[in-house]
Amino acid sequence: MSEFQRPIRLGMVGGGNDAFIGAVHRIAARIDGQYELVAGALSSTPDKAQASGKALGLAPDRTYDDFKSMAIREARLKDGIEAVAIVTPNHVHMAAAREFLKRGIHVICDKPLTSNLADARKMAQAVETSDALFILTHNYTSYPLIRQARDMIASGDLGDIRVVQVEYPQDWLTQAQPKDNKQASWRTDPARSGAGGSTGDIGTHAFNLACFVTGLTPDSLCADIQSFVQGRQVDDNAHVMLRFQEGARGMLWCSQVAPGNENGLRLRVYGAKGGIEWEQETPNVMRHTAFGEPTRLLTRAGAGTDGQPEHLVRTPGGHPEGYLEGFANIYLEAAECIRAKQDGRDMQSETLLPGLNEGLMGMRFIDACVRSSARNAAWISLQ
Amino acid sequence: MSEFQRPIRLGMVGGGNDAFIGAVHRIAARIDGQYELVAGALSSTPDKAQASGKALGLAPDRTYDDFKSMAIREARLKDGIEAVAIVTPNHVHMAAAREFLKRGIHVICDKPLTSNLADARKMAQAVETSDALFILTHNYTSYPLIRQARDMIASGDLGDIRVVQVEYPQDWLTQAQPKDNKQASWRTDPARSGAGGSTGDIGTHAFNLACFVTGLTPDSLCADIQSFVQGRQVDDNAHVMLRFQEGARGMLWCSQVAPGNENGLRLRVYGAKGGIEWEQETPNVMRHTAFGEPTRLLTRAGAGTDGQPEHLVRTPGGHPEGYLEGFANIYLEAAECIRAKQDGRDMQSETLLPGLNEGLMGMRFIDACVRSSARNAAWISLQ
Amino acid sequence: MSEFQRPIRLGMVGGGNDAFIGAVHRIAARIDGQYELVAGALSSTPDKAQASGKALGLAPDRTYDDFKSMAIREARLKDGIEAVAIVTPNHVHMAAAREFLKRGIHVICDKPLTSNLADARKMAQAVETSDALFILTHNYTSYPLIRQARDMIASGDLGDIRVVQVEYPQDWLTQAQPKDNKQASWRTDPARSGAGGSTGDIGTHAFNLACFVTGLTPDSLCADIQSFVQGRQVDDNAHVMLRFQEGARGMLWCSQVAPGNENGLRLRVYGAKGGIEWEQETPNVMRHTAFGEPTRLLTRAGAGTDGQPEHLVRTPGGHPEGYLEGFANIYLEAAECIRAKQDGRDMQSETLLPGLNEGLMGMRFIDACVRSSARNAAWISLQ
Amino acid sequence: MSEFQRPIRLGMVGGGNDAFIGAVHRIAARIDGQYELVAGALSSTPDKAQASGKALGLAPDRTYDDFKSMAIREARLKDGIEAVAIVTPNHVHMAAAREFLKRGIHVICDKPLTSNLADARKMAQAVETSDALFILTHNYTSYPLIRQARDMIASGDLGDIRVVQVEYPQDWLTQAQPKDNKQASWRTDPARSGAGGSTGDIGTHAFNLACFVTGLTPDSLCADIQSFVQGRQVDDNAHVMLRFQEGARGMLWCSQVAPGNENGLRLRVYGAKGGIEWEQETPNVMRHTAFGEPTRLLTRAGAGTDGQPEHLVRTPGGHPEGYLEGFANIYLEAAECIRAKQDGRDMQSETLLPGLNEGLMGMRFIDACVRSSARNAAWISLQ
Repeated sequence: MSEFQRPIRLGMVGGGNDAFIGAVHRIAARIDGQYELVAGALSSTPDKAQASGKALGLAPDRTYDDFKSMAIREARLKDGIEAVAIVTPNHVHMAAAREFLKRGIHVICDKPLTSNLADARKMAQAVETSDALFILTHNYTSYPLIRQARDMIASGDLGDIRVVQVEYPQDWLTQAQPKDNKQASWRTDPARSGAGGSTGDIGTHAFNLACFVTGLTPDSLCADIQSFVQGRQVDDNAHVMLRFQEGARGMLWCSQVAPGNENGLRLRVYGAKGGIEWEQETPNVMRHTAFGEPTRLLTRAGAGTDGQPEHLVRTPGGHPEGYLEGFANIYLEAAECIRAKQDGRDMQSETLLPGLNEGLMGMRFIDACVRSSARNAAWISLQ
Repeated sequence: MSEFQRPIRLGMVGGGNDAFIGAVHRIAARIDGQYELVAGALSSTPDKAQASGKALGLAPDRTYDDFKSMAIREARLKDGIEAVAIVTPNHVHMAAAREFLKRGIHVICDKPLTSNLADARKMAQAVETSDALFILTHNYTSYPLIRQARDMIASGDLGDIRVVQVEYPQDWLTQAQPKDNKQASWRTDPARSGAGGSTGDIGTHAFNLACFVTGLTPDSLCADIQSFVQGRQVDDNAHVMLRFQEGARGMLWCSQVAPGNENGLRLRVYGAKGGIEWEQETPNVMRHTAFGEPTRLLTRAGAGTDGQPEHLVRTPGGHPEGYLEGFANIYLEAAECIRAKQDGRDMQSETLLPGLNEGLMGMRFIDACVRSSARNAAWISLQ
Repeated sequence: MSEFQRPIRLGMVGGGNDAFIGAVHRIAARIDGQYELVAGALSSTPDKAQASGKALGLAPDRTYDDFKSMAIREARLKDGIEAVAIVTPNHVHMAAAREFLKRGIHVICDKPLTSNLADARKMAQAVETSDALFILTHNYTSYPLIRQARDMIASGDLGDIRVVQVEYPQDWLTQAQPKDNKQASWRTDPARSGAGGSTGDIGTHAFNLACFVTGLTPDSLCADIQSFVQGRQVDDNAHVMLRFQEGARGMLWCSQVAPGNENGLRLRVYGAKGGIEWEQETPNVMRHTAFGEPTRLLTRAGAGTDGQPEHLVRTPGGHPEGYLEGFANIYLEAAECIRAKQDGRDMQSETLLPGLNEGLMGMRFIDACVRSSARNAAWISLQ
Repeated sequence: MSEFQRPIRLGMVGGGNDAFIGAVHRIAARIDGQYELVAGALSSTPDKAQASGKALGLAPDRTYDDFKSMAIREARLKDGIEAVAIVTPNHVHMAAAREFLKRGIHVICDKPLTSNLADARKMAQAVETSDALFILTHNYTSYPLIRQARDMIASGDLGDIRVVQVEYPQDWLTQAQPKDNKQASWRTDPARSGAGGSTGDIGTHAFNLACFVTGLTPDSLCADIQSFVQGRQVDDNAHVMLRFQEGARGMLWCSQVAPGNENGLRLRVYGAKGGIEWEQETPNVMRHTAFGEPTRLLTRAGAGTDGQPEHLVRTPGGHPEGYLEGFANIYLEAAECIRAKQDGRDMQSETLLPGLNEGLMGMRFIDACVRSSARNAAWISLQ
């Protein structure tokens, strides 16, 4: 049991009624007791913002109708928020983050970074000119076994990496989305989601995870993206070939029209000395094969493993932890960085927390997929 | 998003440094934001109690050295605790619970009910004479797919139940426990754990789950229990045959000496019309076979399922939820019952929350296993 | 490629049209080209015997109406059969085997040994007074990974064995069998199948496999057997607790009324140093855990394994071999023993081929299950 | 039991000592008793040819030193071979097949068709001008569940096919092959294997399976192929994007350097109404999801399935059949076609047996992969 630390005062932009990811962020912030949600601009619709604030128990005077008023007032309050979670549709990320960053309020932002490259550049400027932290919730990087995988590869257990297979199939958009499905609605609207559909929503996760685990530098990609459902304005399936600067090659497949797949993020990495395989839906086990030996099942908090950070492991092996705990790990490490920052130390660079660079790389990934596909799957540089 | 409700003021007995289940209870209480931990008697060692209280951010005047002082003082405070979580070794459950129950403070108690039958009877009296709620954390009953299984069986989807196979293998006690392993130490000490070792620690979970899901009434059992590790004073493996009043038969195996098993609770139920299979380590999927049809994979929050209570499902299908969310479900439903009680309504009997009866049945299970085995596996009534 | 050897002339008793296991024996005998089927008494119904012989291409004068005529004439032929496969319902095994054994013709007999203990004693006498070999097709003992498991345990890899969990669930008799189902008909008829239903048909396999792999000596059992389907004259489900002389304990479950299970023979063995798990439906992989290390997946012909006899492995790892290859392994080793015998050497005792002793133990198992259950699950000695 | 038919007289070219696939063909030919191996030119080394013939029990005068003498003499014999299995390294396929085809002897040839396109054209001519059958052993098409998958897709169960994901990872060439490994030696030698390494050896299987199951017409591909092991002259990993004329898109990955994969052929197909998934290493189960319903596990010979041809199913569900049975299915259907041909009927076109067209498409696949990769993954037409 580590020493008690006062919870960080947290605000939230977006995440009102019917939102999916806002509720996830709130649970993630609560699990380890490191945050206290005290303010919010929870919806762009004032009525909904008010109702949502009330439902969350926020004080009326800290329930805002828009993020700008919130940033301005909270920055002035003696006990104003120290950090803000931005969980809006993508097209709002930049404008919202900027308001808090310029007032020194730390930002925990959902991915992808923004809805377009122009915004991404503005976001970069806002982050770089701010003294506050910027953390991007590429939550899948925080599963203990993913950390273990990264550690093993960095230690050379797999030898030089040759092949990276990553995929992220879902099926929820197999048919034309019902008009009243709020999630489907904005996620398939280029104005709110961005030019990438499946590439932005889940392809960025897959791409980020592959880079995170392998430590490789992406060089270029070629892509063939599709919108299989008639009338859909963004891609719902993407086939991507990847080249890394170190010589490894990869394949990425993301799809929202693959019936039988709920949230099938899966990573496989093969090197000259061994291979690993991991699937998000059963995140407590990872297969590892040292070439010439039987495959071993490494488990979260299980026997004979290291490389799993102790602070990210809440229960003994066999007690399955999942998506929410993985997400909470981001919030837990963010809390540590925020407190260090308040003490004048920059810890984010020492941690594995994703931030601006990962966000920019994700935006380049989406853009490259779209452009490559438009040019009949030409290779596009990611550098 | 439901209406906001003020968090319930929660105390904790046990759960200090190095404890396993105390930390689980605290996370479970935090996940949905329905509780606020404000007081504790976290250890029977005063120094440790103080240090643990501090580490959890409790006010010094609400960090108690013993549960009795805590019960007395909290009951008098205007803003005293409304509920208490009891997470001590088993032999303390009764005495602690009694102090709170008799002062009208709701009790959320870890299983098994007590360390012996005499205590169990006293506990029963304390519960029955109290106006406060008594909830026993048989947490595995709260996995959404377990609720679905129960619902399917109650609806007759499986026909008359014939065979119940339940097992709970672990391997952490395969060898003699190191002296400094606090968990192993009390869990294998009859004075603290009770006469049952594996039967009490995990067999009660397996037995409870089988009864919960099938809705059957246990009639009798015969058991062959063993202590394979030399010098161990309680059982570390148990083989049990079960008879149910409705005519079904079952087998229960629990073990703490089965290498390769981390926390392998597994339930299989077969009836005249179909069967189901579920494993705790992969709790987001359940196999269901209607006889004569292909096996179907039912998933948490997945397609084509019902019987999963909406309030227990925090994320869409494919976002694995696990042990902590299952545990949190107990706390969530308990909060609802506590608030109803405060409004003068008794809701517990309408819910599926385990309580005194389940605890007493668990004690009878342990006792019957020990007595049956001592009589060369004679049948012992559970009624 | 080993040296060519002339195929052994094989006869068959039983196995005519509609038979299941006869066809399996014929494929098993063909896979390695070590046998030539040249004679048969394929049915107890003469018309069917003739039609079946014709369908198999047997010469008309070697297609017999009954096994006795066949034994008499084949024994006199210069090129008469050297071995006979007996694949009739159980009640015919003894009488048929005796005719061949007493004429020096080697017998490969399906399990269980006979339909009752009196017959078993006569069979024992026939085998013991014959110079011919008697091989019982407990085919599951011949999967390469089962041999590997046996080898590992014999080598002490698992330490002293403590717990043996074996089960064999099926679902094909979940409902009352249709009258025209020949398989169901004789297998649920005590006059033809014997007193054991599921215990005889599949329980003997499970029991045999547990003994084979562990090398333990069964001491006693207690059983609770049921006939869940109304009107069924033999058991269709059995729960059995086992004690071994060396101190290990076990559980055996066999069922033919467990919907969702096709042929789910599964063995788990746990010792002081490790555990293994194997399932017949995915026979090319076995889990092995050395206590304190990650579980390893040992595969048929895979990396880092030994203990798999080379002659039983026909293809490289990853090319799944199954039930028929396992069965063929019995025939392959039997061919070796028959040829050695023809050269005056007794090899069977050096091999792991099951024979009379395994058959007698299986009969004791069935008998003990029935008697134990009749005495309310009393312990019955197996010695 | 169908009517008996005299075994077909079979010869073999290649398949001597140390060969892998020759032994597989022989077992496949034996399993159903439809062939009798009577002649062979088993090695290009006369001594080895003689020794191998002896080991297989061939008559000395039907053990040939070269395939041409064999073709000439067998064609003249009254009881000469009716069919020949060609199981040599790829560069010999054409010359050998031609000698038999032009003499009216049916050819069962291992894949890929030849080692280069020029040979493929000659092979095509030889096949087209012959009255004999030409069957290519794309054995994976004969697994019963693969037939079921094809049937389901043809019936529209999956709706219009959108996405095809096929992969075939192995790991046996992860390191530089030992010089004395005969299999590795010729399979990585362009002169014997052809320009494609992994693409030819296993990529052709994956490509063929995808086309077979979906019934789609391949339009074009782009590929990025690699030789990761230093000094290797052929590809050992290939990433391929596929386009089909009907609008579907696909990805194909084959690799021989992916540690932890033994023989991991895996096919996933997704359409507007559903999806299926199948893996070769566990070939007795296939996942099928009708969109909006739970995933169903279809099993070989299991409940609720159709589309599995009865003659390809030798045992009830739960009795795993594998690689050898799948291979035997080719031989079984080939026997039927050969006999029909002998009766003047052409049945091959009515069956699903692969032949020349599949072989030519495979050669175009290899060639396109190599050319596309040489042009930086340009799209290459497959028409």
